[in-house]
Amino acid sequence: MDITSETHSQHISKQFNHELEELKTHLMAMGGLVERQIQEAVSALLDGDSRLAEHVRDNDKAVNDLQIKIDDECTRVLARRQPAASDLRLVLAVIRATSDLERIGDEASKIARNALALTEGGNGSKGFVEVRHISEHVRKMLRDALTAFARFDIDLALAVVHEDDAVDSEYTSAMRSLMTFMMEDPRSITSVLSVMWILRALERIGDHANNLAEYVIYLVKGLDIRHIDPDELDEDALKR
Amino acid sequence: MDITSETHSQHISKQFNHELEELKTHLMAMGGLVERQIQEAVSALLDGDSRLAEHVRDNDKAVNDLQIKIDDECTRVLARRQPAASDLRLVLAVIRATSDLERIGDEASKIARNALALTEGGNGSKGFVEVRHISEHVRKMLRDALTAFARFDIDLALAVVHEDDAVDSEYTSAMRSLMTFMMEDPRSITSVLSVMWILRALERIGDHANNLAEYVIYLVKGLDIRHIDPDELDEDALKR
Repeated sequence: MDITSETHSQHISKQFNHELEELKTHLMAMGGLVERQIQEAVSALLDGDSRLAEHVRDNDKAVNDLQIKIDDECTRVLARRQPAASDLRLVLAVIRATSDLERIGDEASKIARNALALTEGGNGSKGFVEVRHISEHVRKMLRDALTAFARFDIDLALAVVHEDDAVDSEYTSAMRSLMTFMMEDPRSITSVLSVMWILRALERIGDHANNLAEYVIYLVKGLDIRHIDPDELDEDALKR
Repeated sequence: MDITSETHSQHISKQFNHELEELKTHLMAMGGLVERQIQEAVSALLDGDSRLAEHVRDNDKAVNDLQIKIDDECTRVLARRQPAASDLRLVLAVIRATSDLERIGDEASKIARNALALTEGGNGSKGFVEVRHISEHVRKMLRDALTAFARFDIDLALAVVHEDDAVDSEYTSAMRSLMTFMMEDPRSITSVLSVMWILRALERIGDHANNLAEYVIYLVKGLDIRHIDPDELDEDALKR
């Protein structure tokens, strides 16, 4: 290779790395946006703030636009750079991740719509403590999954995967207590159902954060753990 | 190009086409499996067949295994063949499609689990007519979306996209009548909630079938319509 073509190929590789970094940066921006959507949707519920709920609902378009934009960038990188090995895994992980973030955005919209219904109904606040608690839990999972993605941090990704079981059991117990409340006070059925949909949306957000963490393990280790029980993972092998 | 290398490149291109065909074939097999999972889960509910429900629940692993296998094949095609243009779009569409089919499988499992709860509870059959009706509707959407994928059939894909609104309004009306029933007979709350979860799972299956149809349009036309309102699509332009 002569000096000119070496410089040329260094230039290409620098440009390529820059494009991969950009993909990650844009994914993080999308992650930050959906995290804010969750936070604002839950605040709208807890504070009975219908304008904030409407804002979240209307802002879902921005999330969708980001997905289209990032997926487009990924397709262009695949077509032009034809990445292999870990670069290919990064692009595929970003494509999968935008799909989960987009669905988290949808769930945040659902929370906002149910918050609106509850605000208009002027009902009690049964289940709000659980909503607050679980929403903080899944937002932390989402933040950690994104950080793990940005840093290729296997330990943090594994921690998120383990966290999902805790969210599931908090969800189950909250649903059970809401069901009991409904039976005791049938007039509350409509409003309690709205809170149940909100809890279910939060539980789904936990699942998506868990998926994001699994993509981190895939992209760093080339190992697809999507359908392995977290308790059966050989973590020492993953951390090696 | 001399004759040997021409034969060689023809051989490669034949082999490549064969690999792409295989991806489609495996996707169709996965689609057939999840369609059967929905059908059996709903039959288990309607016939109170707890063994069939358990079978569906246990069979979810087969769906998951297929996803991993097909995704693996896609990654290998991307790494070795470095496809461009419509070939690249096909591989990306298959990756997206396996994700939706896997989630349809999850929803079928949820239906089976709720069918089990209902069978054990020995409750009435409130909402079963709606479940049967909506399940037939979304199964047809899924079948049509898969056929559209196999045949690159834009018209059929567009028909599926339009069908989703009909399912959503059937779902909303079924949910409303179940809510009324709950208020009239609070002792039914537990069992009616299970039927509600089943309806919601079916509605989600409709969404995923809709996604599959959108990927067909993406792969044939290179156009991402995921976040465009079906009523605002310029269909004549798409069919050109």
